[in-house]
Amino acid sequence: MSNAQCQGLHLDPSTREDARRRLLSIKGHVEGILRMLEDETVYCVDALKQIKAVNGALEKVAGLVLRSHLRDHVVTAQQRGDVDEIVEELMEVLKYR
Amino acid sequence: MSNAQCQGLHLDPSTREDARRRLLSIKGHVEGILRMLEDETVYCVDALKQIKAVNGALEKVAGLVLRSHLRDHVVTAQQRGDVDEIVEELMEVLKYR
Amino acid sequence: MSNAQCQGLHLDPSTREDARRRLLSIKGHVEGILRMLEDETVYCVDALKQIKAVNGALEKVAGLVLRSHLRDHVVTAQQRGDVDEIVEELMEVLKYR
Amino acid sequence: MSNAQCQGLHLDPSTREDARRRLLSIKGHVEGILRMLEDETVYCVDALKQIKAVNGALEKVAGLVLRSHLRDHVVTAQQRGDVDEIVEELMEVLKYR
Repeated sequence: MSNAQCQGLHLDPSTREDARRRLLSIKGHVEGILRMLEDETVYCVDALKQIKAVNGALEKVAGLVLRSHLRDHVVTAQQRGDVDEIVEELMEVLKYR
Repeated sequence: MSNAQCQGLHLDPSTREDARRRLLSIKGHVEGILRMLEDETVYCVDALKQIKAVNGALEKVAGLVLRSHLRDHVVTAQQRGDVDEIVEELMEVLKYR
Repeated sequence: MSNAQCQGLHLDPSTREDARRRLLSIKGHVEGILRMLEDETVYCVDALKQIKAVNGALEKVAGLVLRSHLRDHVVTAQQRGDVDEIVEELMEVLKYR
Repeated sequence: MSNAQCQGLHLDPSTREDARRRLLSIKGHVEGILRMLEDETVYCVDALKQIKAVNGALEKVAGLVLRSHLRDHVVTAQQRGDVDEIVEELMEVLKYR
C-alpha cells in the first residue's frame, strides 16, 4: 500500500466528478478523430489540429487535478511529515526530472 | 472546399492506419482513467500520471502525422505553389503563433 | 510589500547560488548564439538547435527553483495560512491557467 | 561540410537580424535575473516567472527561425533532392523523436 493510500490522500469528490465529465468528452473527441481517420481523403493538418485539441483538453484536466492535489495534500505535507515523497513525486509528474 | 482537399493532400494510408491503431489504444487508456476515477480512494498523482501518459501517446501520434505531412506535402509546396498556406497552417498547428 | 516578502519566503542560499552559476553559463550560451548569427552562412537548424538547448538549460534552472519552493514554502502553506495565494501563484507559473 | 553548407541553405538576412536583436534583449533579461539572484531576499516564484518569461522570448525567436527555414528550405526540399535529411533534422529539432 502506498503512502498516499495509507494516509487517505484522495482526490476530492467534486474534482473527481469534474475530471470524469471532461474525460468522457475527451473520449468522444478521440472517437471523432478515429472516424475522421477512416476517411481516405483526410488532410494531415486537420488530424493534427484535432490531436492537439485533445492534448489541450487533457492538460485542463491535469490542471484541475493538480490544483486539487496542491490544495489538499501538498500544502499540508509538513504537518503530515511526508515532504520528501510529496515533493519528489510532484517534480516527476511535472516532468522536472 | 479547402486548398488541401482540392489538391488531394491526403494522409498516406499506412500512417493513417498506424494512427488509428494508436488512437484506439489511447481511447482504451482514457476509459481506464475513467474507471480509475470511479474509485473514491483514487490518489491525485496516480490520476495525473495517467493523464500525462495519454498526452505522451497523443504526441507520438502527432509526430507520425507531422512527419508524413512534411514528407508528402510540405517539401513539395514550392512545386505545387501553395507555400504561404502550407507554412502558416503548419506554424499554427505547431503553436508558433 | 508582497505576502512573500512579509513572510520571509526566500529562495534558499545554495539553490540561489546554483541557479546563478547555471544562468551565467546560459548567458554565455546566448552570447554564443549571437556570434553564430553574425555569420551570413549560418544554417537555420543549427541556430534552432542552440535556442532549444538554452530552453532546456533554463527549464533545469526552473526545476531547481521549483523544487526549492515546494520544499521550503508550499508544503508549509497550511501552517502559515496562505494556501490560496501559494496555490494560485504556483498554478499560474506552471501555466495551468 | 554539412549538406546545409554545401547547398547554401542560409538563414535569410532580415530574420537573422531580427533574431539577433531579440537575443540581445534576452541576454539583458538573463543578466537581470542574475542581479535578482544576488538579493538574499528574492522570492522563488518571482525568479521562476522571469525564467519562464525568458523561455517564452526564446520560443518566439525559435518560431521566427523556424518559419524562415520552412519558407526558404523545407518547401523546396523535393526540388533540391534532400527530403530525408531535411525532414529528419526538423523532426528532431521539434522534439518529435
